[in-house]
Amino acid sequence: MKRNHTKSEEIINLYIQLQKEGKKNCFSENTIEILSEIFLRTQKFLNRMKKINLISKVAGKSYFAFALNEKTSRAINTNLYNASIEDWMEIVTSIKQNNIEAHPKEFIDKVLYTIVASFIASIDLIKSRDQKTTGTFFEYFIAFLFSWRVGVEPKNSIQVLNIDDEDTKLPTDYIFNLGNNNKKFHMPVKLSTRERSIMLWAHQKLLDGVYGIETFMGTPVLFAETKTSNKNEVIEICLPEQWRLYQLYIAKLKRIYYLDVPKAYEKLSYNFPPLIVKPFSEFFFEWNQLLPS
Amino acid sequence: MKRNHTKSEEIINLYIQLQKEGKKNCFSENTIEILSEIFLRTQKFLNRMKKINLISKVAGKSYFAFALNEKTSRAINTNLYNASIEDWMEIVTSIKQNNIEAHPKEFIDKVLYTIVASFIASIDLIKSRDQKTTGTFFEYFIAFLFSWRVGVEPKNSIQVLNIDDEDTKLPTDYIFNLGNNNKKFHMPVKLSTRERSIMLWAHQKLLDGVYGIETFMGTPVLFAETKTSNKNEVIEICLPEQWRLYQLYIAKLKRIYYLDVPKAYEKLSYNFPPLIVKPFSEFFFEWNQLLPS
Repeated sequence: MKRNHTKSEEIINLYIQLQKEGKKNCFSENTIEILSEIFLRTQKFLNRMKKINLISKVAGKSYFAFALNEKTSRAINTNLYNASIEDWMEIVTSIKQNNIEAHPKEFIDKVLYTIVASFIASIDLIKSRDQKTTGTFFEYFIAFLFSWRVGVEPKNSIQVLNIDDEDTKLPTDYIFNLGNNNKKFHMPVKLSTRERSIMLWAHQKLLDGVYGIETFMGTPVLFAETKTSNKNEVIEICLPEQWRLYQLYIAKLKRIYYLDVPKAYEKLSYNFPPLIVKPFSEFFFEWNQLLPS
Repeated sequence: MKRNHTKSEEIINLYIQLQKEGKKNCFSENTIEILSEIFLRTQKFLNRMKKINLISKVAGKSYFAFALNEKTSRAINTNLYNASIEDWMEIVTSIKQNNIEAHPKEFIDKVLYTIVASFIASIDLIKSRDQKTTGTFFEYFIAFLFSWRVGVEPKNSIQVLNIDDEDTKLPTDYIFNLGNNNKKFHMPVKLSTRERSIMLWAHQKLLDGVYGIETFMGTPVLFAETKTSNKNEVIEICLPEQWRLYQLYIAKLKRIYYLDVPKAYEKLSYNFPPLIVKPFSEFFFEWNQLLPS
């Protein structure tokens, strides 16, 4: 038990380092080192934990959870949680050589899913009801990848014109401005949306209002939408019909990326009007072709 | 301790009765009886609890909390928590005689605040981290008053036209339709909004899109925006500048009613463009004059 305790403190310390580094720059060589260390430590930590098979109510997906004493982690997708430290080091090499697209999409998805799930599951077992640490980790991790790929650091607020008073600053989700006359992304990052999904479209509508429709392309990145019942059954909480209405009546989101795309949202890409929901790996292949419609 | 236990079960049972009744009709004579009984029981329950003075960081307001063993209730506004069962019975009489406007606004606010705070504080001490019970109670309580005043029962979903498939139903907050060619209200009910406030405007925008701008007048009803720190300091979490931007760029809300109006939102009524935030008692006096702008 003593050793366990030490390991969990190491994970928290690495998370604090990630935060410190992330406040300076989302993308940095230091961040790569910290992320690699986090993956290594969380894997070692979880290797000693009990694994519980969960009952999947989602067609074609299977899930398990890690457990320690009274605590159980969130549901983990068995097929996606399937990458090693060596796999991550391959991704790291391709990040440094600027050619992540050389890997198959499925490989990228598995590696990114595994490192995030590994951290989330560890925190679920170390802390009690802590949503903030895992959410913040996910934000830094995705901002690191996005920032590397598009080549600019994000901002977290925008200037708003105000005809009477002084101009005001509006806090926002991540905003990546690739420069004068170039692409601009609006990227909310959330582990899941649940009953709060309408906020993605509302923030897009606000940016549309302040800067013009689709000046910023909305490309939220999400983790998953799973929920485990107290009978150990896993479902995905999805509202596809409502999402279509948000896309029709509030604002247009360009893409919605998931590390584990919920079944009910996959089909939205083929409906009219299309709302394109994709695995996050696709972003690396298509980001440069994305344009306001 | 044995007696304590019995009392808390009685409160939960009354809450279950309120839910059952509310699923049939928001306004009914039965609901009045249940609410009166809830007020009586929660007052008796709280009378035996410890009171803790909190440090108010809000100018002109003072707060306290109830405590039992390790549990502490949410912050309660000392000036508003100041009504007796007899006061409530006066309100009940005026509801039955259809003349609540005969009372001073301040009296109505105190009575409504006290009954809600009394239930919330009791649940905070009875249950652990239960947001759902208190939120649902508040919904039923406000829907009961609103429904009585406007004379119709609310709906929780609307029909949405769909050019291709069959029409779909969109779940919504409370919708009060006073009839053909008559007023329609869109009334979200929340204990607080915090970082989720943009959802009020987003839901209004959705209704504006489906049925036409301000066909439904948005009149959300909220409880308060207080937060107690672990140093027992109470603040109000407010985002007035962001609310102005939501009102400018997303949709127009007709009124925002609070049982305890946050200081920072009071002033918005005098800004341009106005966003009118008022004590809920005002609704009873002005509802019949409200018109889409």
